[in-house]
Amino acid sequence: MKRRELVGQIKAKKSFLCVGLDADIHKLPKHLLQDADPVFAFNQAIIDATADLAVAYKPNLAFYESLGVRGWDSLQRTLEYIPADCFTIADAKRGDIGNTADMYARTFFNTYDFDSVTVNPYMGEDSVTPFLKFEGKWAIVLGLTSNAGAADFQYFTNEAGTPLYKHAMQKMASWGTPENLMYVVGATRPAELGELRQMLPEHFFLVPGVGAQGGSLAEVYENGANADVGLLVNASRSILYASSGPDFAEAARAEAMRLQLEMAALMEQ
Amino acid sequence: MKRRELVGQIKAKKSFLCVGLDADIHKLPKHLLQDADPVFAFNQAIIDATADLAVAYKPNLAFYESLGVRGWDSLQRTLEYIPADCFTIADAKRGDIGNTADMYARTFFNTYDFDSVTVNPYMGEDSVTPFLKFEGKWAIVLGLTSNAGAADFQYFTNEAGTPLYKHAMQKMASWGTPENLMYVVGATRPAELGELRQMLPEHFFLVPGVGAQGGSLAEVYENGANADVGLLVNASRSILYASSGPDFAEAARAEAMRLQLEMAALMEQ
Repeated sequence: MKRRELVGQIKAKKSFLCVGLDADIHKLPKHLLQDADPVFAFNQAIIDATADLAVAYKPNLAFYESLGVRGWDSLQRTLEYIPADCFTIADAKRGDIGNTADMYARTFFNTYDFDSVTVNPYMGEDSVTPFLKFEGKWAIVLGLTSNAGAADFQYFTNEAGTPLYKHAMQKMASWGTPENLMYVVGATRPAELGELRQMLPEHFFLVPGVGAQGGSLAEVYENGANADVGLLVNASRSILYASSGPDFAEAARAEAMRLQLEMAALMEQ
Repeated sequence: MKRRELVGQIKAKKSFLCVGLDADIHKLPKHLLQDADPVFAFNQAIIDATADLAVAYKPNLAFYESLGVRGWDSLQRTLEYIPADCFTIADAKRGDIGNTADMYARTFFNTYDFDSVTVNPYMGEDSVTPFLKFEGKWAIVLGLTSNAGAADFQYFTNEAGTPLYKHAMQKMASWGTPENLMYVVGATRPAELGELRQMLPEHFFLVPGVGAQGGSLAEVYENGANADVGLLVNASRSILYASSGPDFAEAARAEAMRLQLEMAALMEQ
């Protein structure tokens, strides 16, 4: 999906919500476990309940890989089920030397038809650029993540006072364009988000950390939005597991709608 | 596999060779493509030809994932075929927030029964420690990698003159022990390897970059060995694709034996 289409979807739906499809087999509503493919049955219900409210879906690969071959089957079925007007993100956080990165890019863009894949930048340029060579496809590189461990290395600071995450994000901007490169910036760090938006006015930011991790949507918008909105805010557990009972899909819809209505209000300010 | 067993294997085989199983379907000898599972057929022949010369095997996950479900089947069959006296490495370079890292750890240690998995440290402590909680299993964290892109962020240096890779490797030593934590250090950087061995006298280093990437085995040993050897030197393409004809397995054995004999000579110095 091209940037223009993504921005169009955000404006049409008045939403920049990304639903994280972290379908944990151990947390699925009990009645689904009788299904031949419980993970797909769960995702299907979640997608049906949220597709008019969300502009993107982000399966977290760990949850599929952990099930072995049948997990990859569930992933493929889920990807095919996501409506064409929604942006798809393989949350895989891959990163390896050039020839291997190239193989990962072909996996997620050819073997599977994702619009984007999350990429870990630790190994540098040849680990990132293979993901930038596919028309209409995106690399979403880790910048400043939402977890506690982000403090360990991402804030490692040079003599000039620049932390690694900022140095890395600036440098990576020269490898791609706002048409094929996004950044992960955690919702739990609104002050840094504002500085990063100053530094990178045009790029999309994928923002996890609203919901279970405690980030504020209003603060994210205030600090991170640009003229095209330029944000995809992800919520996973707060939507997927809003109820553990037979009403899980309605509860997921209610939580997604709560977020979408807040997004629409922020966009109309 | 425990450290003591791994060191025992190295001493018994006079080898610290790890064979990287990067089976690229586009590079396999033509006659194998008629097999129902060409990747497994190839790996099986490579393992048969090298199992007395190597102490470890390292499937590179990208090459299996790129084939979708049948790639994961080939991986499972390959893993089951590797002899029990060889150490197994899932070269996956995973790294994510705590609950996801935990899922990845369960994938590679429970769903699949690998001895170890490579881990990317960019996201910090909660992305690494879930891999350290399994008895007899290992996290192999990226330290200083062998590729050109390593220069981009791994050499990012603080006010005290310490580069990120060194800071990260030192810090991660406090998260695990030499019994459950190894580091990736590229063979293409022998001077740094020597400094890192001073800093971390006991830990194993997994060393890629000998072979196709041009690193020297003698320099690696001279700079990186400790009393237990403490090295696993990986070669992938130089062994796997030593010949593209029907004699690929014999050619692979010849290249593995060349490396093993050089290793034995270095160990006997």
